[in-house]
Amino acid sequence: MVTVVRSVALGAGGEFDLIRRLVADGGALCPEVLVGPGDDAAVLEGGWVVSTDLSVEGVHFRRDWLSDREVGYRAATAALSDLAAMAARPVGVLVSIALPVAPDGDAPEGTGAGAAVDPEAVQAGVRDAASVVGASVIGGDVTRSPGPLVLDVVVLGRADAPVLRAGAREGDEIWVTGALGAAAAAVRVWEGGGTPPAAAREAFARPVARVSLALALAQAGALHALIDLSDGLAGDAGHLAAAGRVRITLEAARVPVAEVAVEVLGPDGARDAALHGGEDYELCFAARPGAIEPATLGARFGVPLTRVGTVAEGSGVWLRALDGSERPVARGGFSHLPEVGG
Amino acid sequence: MVTVVRSVALGAGGEFDLIRRLVADGGALCPEVLVGPGDDAAVLEGGWVVSTDLSVEGVHFRRDWLSDREVGYRAATAALSDLAAMAARPVGVLVSIALPVAPDGDAPEGTGAGAAVDPEAVQAGVRDAASVVGASVIGGDVTRSPGPLVLDVVVLGRADAPVLRAGAREGDEIWVTGALGAAAAAVRVWEGGGTPPAAAREAFARPVARVSLALALAQAGALHALIDLSDGLAGDAGHLAAAGRVRITLEAARVPVAEVAVEVLGPDGARDAALHGGEDYELCFAARPGAIEPATLGARFGVPLTRVGTVAEGSGVWLRALDGSERPVARGGFSHLPEVGG
Repeated sequence: MVTVVRSVALGAGGEFDLIRRLVADGGALCPEVLVGPGDDAAVLEGGWVVSTDLSVEGVHFRRDWLSDREVGYRAATAALSDLAAMAARPVGVLVSIALPVAPDGDAPEGTGAGAAVDPEAVQAGVRDAASVVGASVIGGDVTRSPGPLVLDVVVLGRADAPVLRAGAREGDEIWVTGALGAAAAAVRVWEGGGTPPAAAREAFARPVARVSLALALAQAGALHALIDLSDGLAGDAGHLAAAGRVRITLEAARVPVAEVAVEVLGPDGARDAALHGGEDYELCFAARPGAIEPATLGARFGVPLTRVGTVAEGSGVWLRALDGSERPVARGGFSHLPEVGG
Repeated sequence: MVTVVRSVALGAGGEFDLIRRLVADGGALCPEVLVGPGDDAAVLEGGWVVSTDLSVEGVHFRRDWLSDREVGYRAATAALSDLAAMAARPVGVLVSIALPVAPDGDAPEGTGAGAAVDPEAVQAGVRDAASVVGASVIGGDVTRSPGPLVLDVVVLGRADAPVLRAGAREGDEIWVTGALGAAAAAVRVWEGGGTPPAAAREAFARPVARVSLALALAQAGALHALIDLSDGLAGDAGHLAAAGRVRITLEAARVPVAEVAVEVLGPDGARDAALHGGEDYELCFAARPGAIEPATLGARFGVPLTRVGTVAEGSGVWLRALDGSERPVARGGFSHLPEVGG
């Protein structure tokens, strides 16, 4: 059984300000809604967990970067990552697709950015992503649009004890899975007109929702608070800090940076990408000291686990630099994702 | 308890062909999914019912037809109507909004089609529609987009005994709620450059999801099969016929046509709008003969109930004309909604 949470405090930033306003004054929730707006997903009676995630051509991806099947895979994985972020087991996916069609009804020929979208390829990619985590496509909607290609992926999962963003306690350790910054490095190369190294492209095109790892961590009782990394470590740690009303200090020297990000962006640029680049879809969590055995879990799931910080009384996210000085983490402007309302 | 339904046969038409292909080969469903793709909504263990519905500017609405608040209200009502179509009680709504923003980040000023979308007004309209049926907004997503305005509304409801599209039996009566064709009449006037009469505009801008009526009908045990009218009576009766593997005959003289549709389109045009116009969001259902008392229910809910046809062995939808002749109903081309993939 989970505690009923009516709304969750969000970290700083223009997009979050808008979301905050949109979910404000939402009125009373039905008693069957156990967790309302503001966490990675809503939680319903019976342990159902539900979230929805938009992917827009020209904002979240470009069609000259990805195949249509990769577009579907990536959009669905981004949504499924929100279930991992609740320690929920994915069950069903619904996908809504707004298909760009020219006003005269003719779709352009060929492949790539200017070509007609193949909705069956997009759907196949969604199905790939669902089947990787044991879920299936149970519905959706499709309509034509003057463009661009828009996907909205709804994910439904099950959790007896969902792990929320709130719950980090003074003295907890902050951990992340995987190595960060590779997807952002790929975007930087594409935006400069280049072709990213294979490892960077793969990180962007084929992210992995850390579902089984999240379930194992939750089952071990190790998690106090959990989020997935979609906005960059700094921003997402900010959500944990705000939801838990605590201060999180990240140690710059400990942040696990992807090798290919260093190769492309240099060490400073890569650390910036890890902190602010977003879209890594790794997990960030607060755990009691000593609860996590990184070697055992890392070997079992083939993913490194790294302790990157600590929780203390206070508020906000602070970065401890290599020289030991601490400063509040400014909201990064690294990501190619533009701010809404900003 | 509902029977587990793995997929539902759809009626004829280009858009349905695409949806059929997209949901085909969906792989095995988890045992927690009781009704999969193809009905008005999916049904999950615990009686949860879920559906999603896209509304795209320039396809489903125009911003010089509706205020931003009406855009949100109408999109959410269209989605909630899918819960009425399952005889489910609405609980939660998630709304994803892709907000048009110019590439330079500047939003146009003023109001109307060329003005910046006010996301708070859109959200207020979604909240209006949710509160009308006792639901609340429990999540969503918001992102900017090169345009147009796209809303995807996810609805979650609860039904102990959801009523599916399949189930119409030989000898059943086919009924519809309300009067049809007014929303299509408004669209026709707007497309001709005019201003629709208030009653037609109201039907388009402020549809009503027939939730309480659907629940009362289901509770009375009167329903064998149920759908909402989003594609026009002919098309949606076609879904009931295909799902139930029966033939439905509609009597032209009995189809309830909205007065304002006759005023705008003339008697023949209004009947065509009722059959093929779509977006009335009324209910169409199959019931055993004599099960429905239209006077009592109509008075209780302030909505007329009209017996429009019968169910027999066979397939497809047939129209009995005023002279008694019968012909298969051609798929209508009335609606302003363009076909996907057509």
